[in-house]
Amino acid sequence: MPRTLGNAVIGQSGGPTAVINQSLVGIVETLREAKEVRHVLGAVHGIQGVLNGQLVDLSREKTKRLEAVARTPSSALRSVRHKPTPEECRAILDELERLEVRWFFYIGGNDSAETARLIEELARADGYELHLFHVPKTIDNDLRVTDHCPGYPSAAKFVVQAMMGDNLDNRSLPGIKIDVIMGRHAGWLTAASALARQFDDDGPHLIYVPERVFSMERFLADVARVHAEHGRCLVAVSEGIHGPDGQTLVEAKERDSHGNVQLSGSGALGDLLAQEVKSKLGIKRVRADTFGYLQRSFVGVVSAVDAREAREVGRFAARRALKGKEPSGSISIVRESARQDRYRASYAVTQLSKVAKDTRPMESRFLRGDHDVSPAFVSYLTPLLGELPEVARLSDVAYRG
Amino acid sequence: MPRTLGNAVIGQSGGPTAVINQSLVGIVETLREAKEVRHVLGAVHGIQGVLNGQLVDLSREKTKRLEAVARTPSSALRSVRHKPTPEECRAILDELERLEVRWFFYIGGNDSAETARLIEELARADGYELHLFHVPKTIDNDLRVTDHCPGYPSAAKFVVQAMMGDNLDNRSLPGIKIDVIMGRHAGWLTAASALARQFDDDGPHLIYVPERVFSMERFLADVARVHAEHGRCLVAVSEGIHGPDGQTLVEAKERDSHGNVQLSGSGALGDLLAQEVKSKLGIKRVRADTFGYLQRSFVGVVSAVDAREAREVGRFAARRALKGKEPSGSISIVRESARQDRYRASYAVTQLSKVAKDTRPMESRFLRGDHDVSPAFVSYLTPLLGELPEVARLSDVAYRG
Repeated sequence: MPRTLGNAVIGQSGGPTAVINQSLVGIVETLREAKEVRHVLGAVHGIQGVLNGQLVDLSREKTKRLEAVARTPSSALRSVRHKPTPEECRAILDELERLEVRWFFYIGGNDSAETARLIEELARADGYELHLFHVPKTIDNDLRVTDHCPGYPSAAKFVVQAMMGDNLDNRSLPGIKIDVIMGRHAGWLTAASALARQFDDDGPHLIYVPERVFSMERFLADVARVHAEHGRCLVAVSEGIHGPDGQTLVEAKERDSHGNVQLSGSGALGDLLAQEVKSKLGIKRVRADTFGYLQRSFVGVVSAVDAREAREVGRFAARRALKGKEPSGSISIVRESARQDRYRASYAVTQLSKVAKDTRPMESRFLRGDHDVSPAFVSYLTPLLGELPEVARLSDVAYRG
Repeated sequence: MPRTLGNAVIGQSGGPTAVINQSLVGIVETLREAKEVRHVLGAVHGIQGVLNGQLVDLSREKTKRLEAVARTPSSALRSVRHKPTPEECRAILDELERLEVRWFFYIGGNDSAETARLIEELARADGYELHLFHVPKTIDNDLRVTDHCPGYPSAAKFVVQAMMGDNLDNRSLPGIKIDVIMGRHAGWLTAASALARQFDDDGPHLIYVPERVFSMERFLADVARVHAEHGRCLVAVSEGIHGPDGQTLVEAKERDSHGNVQLSGSGALGDLLAQEVKSKLGIKRVRADTFGYLQRSFVGVVSAVDAREAREVGRFAARRALKGKEPSGSISIVRESARQDRYRASYAVTQLSKVAKDTRPMESRFLRGDHDVSPAFVSYLTPLLGELPEVARLSDVAYRG
């Protein structure tokens, strides 16, 4: 029984992921079946589209096209990185009221949850009935409450496959190789590189995350030790590593409007570390790669588990919004069993304020010492990645003439 | 009828590729069936393994394992970058004679062909019967004679899928994005990025290769023009771009023993170009990624055509070496039809001297102006890539409230 007749708006915000359009399509397909929703609208470039009147009608989009969009990485509605001012929040709500929008879905990270929370506060003060749901996505995996974030498993799969290849490359032409991986405040994506290991001597041999204070002296000692043992060393390092004062190694000058330092889109950190290894350890073959934006938008590397869950969080958000029990919320994924061979997810609604603003670093139980992850982390991530390519070695039986 | 009884040695040299082990396995499986070959040996780290006595017996390697190795990127025998001195060439041949090696296969690029040529010269002077074949591989696609090089199509596929994703990312969060792609002397891999385009406004909007003289002034004007038209600009640039004096933009200090400047494994060129765009054009959101080693060793992105051809060049080399018509040669791929829908390859033997040392730049017919490729290049590359993932857009029907 339809309680409210009105329109629905969906927006995508922040950095894109490989499965963010699965969530979009999950919402669209569920809303299109609901009689109480007149038009399902998409806001182009998130809240910016609401402010500028850039809205597209998703109601009559062909199912075949929607499915193709769902399989396409990176926000199909286009994205935005902008923290709205109080005046802009007011203008957004005014526009939503003018358009008779009763359901608003914002697919994004913690900044997007905060934007949703601000708009919801205003709506409640207005006494305007608005169902406002935040649908999680971030390759950083740093949202609170949820077991993990849609988008992270696919980015992690990219990192694992890249690191598997780089380990083979480094084994073939030995030297020191440093790979810089995304993650400002949390090491989840860098930690994923550990799952590239298949043989005892496989890299990454050292993993540095922002949850541990980075020391250049310890780093150089670690590299020298691994190099002495294996004749090579593969290092995974998060872009957000920092010293005891909390300053990142490379303080990029540009800051986006949420106050985040821009660390991606530059090779500076990798080059800095490589230079240190060359000059202090006197090792000749030292290389650095910065995985960069490839991690979040590469076409063709998607975790099937991630794709399915991203679709489900969208559907779940739409169903709960239509039910109308909660005026607002953020969707979280609940892991039903700690056993990795019995992995199963369910979905729940959390208050926006519990997800907004702050991020979630890796728990201590997922780390081992200051340059590795724990077996608990491997168990946590393994079921999320889906199938990985197999790599093999020759048996290397020596020929003695 | 076996003419000669003796051993065979296979080595892998230079930068690895995603399909270099297909060629290895193609040689091994063919030689194992030949009665005149006693042992099929692998030289660990190429000629270095011959010099150090690091040889492995591939004769009894299980077929199942060989197939798994064939599917694994990066030289399973491990690689080497070393131009042997005349004394080392003498020592290598002495060792081959001592081991009664009658067949020697070297899988590599132009430097490896030159090494093979030097050893063959000595063997001929000794009057020692040695069948010496160079099996081509290089992601750079810069070997002479052959239509294309095994390893290139898979690396090109990686570049295309990366660029497809980066184009979607750049469309979602507009700005200037610069992607630095491998290729010292030839732009083949950078040019491949053009195949990421599916819609009229898709990037890469600008493609710079070393075959054309790079001008910073023209580059900045090009970027400004594209940015004015599309509100964004995606640039593919080869690591080897250079000014009229032939100097690369970033002269890295390290040179390997073949006299090649080290351009990979550093983010310096991308950062330099991004800084120029920021400071000269005053555009805020400017990012650069250097695709780096991921291009040649990523696990899970392989062109099926490339995998099949890499296997075939190995088999063909082994068959021709066993036949014994030519004492030596390099295998080349011949394209049987210029029509891309009728693509078919055959294989031929070329003299080592025709492939050794020099490289092959992109022909003018494959380029258009100073910042794009021609339709002829798209036709050249398309049949080599195999199936590409599909990406889709929303139909973007505006909602007029």
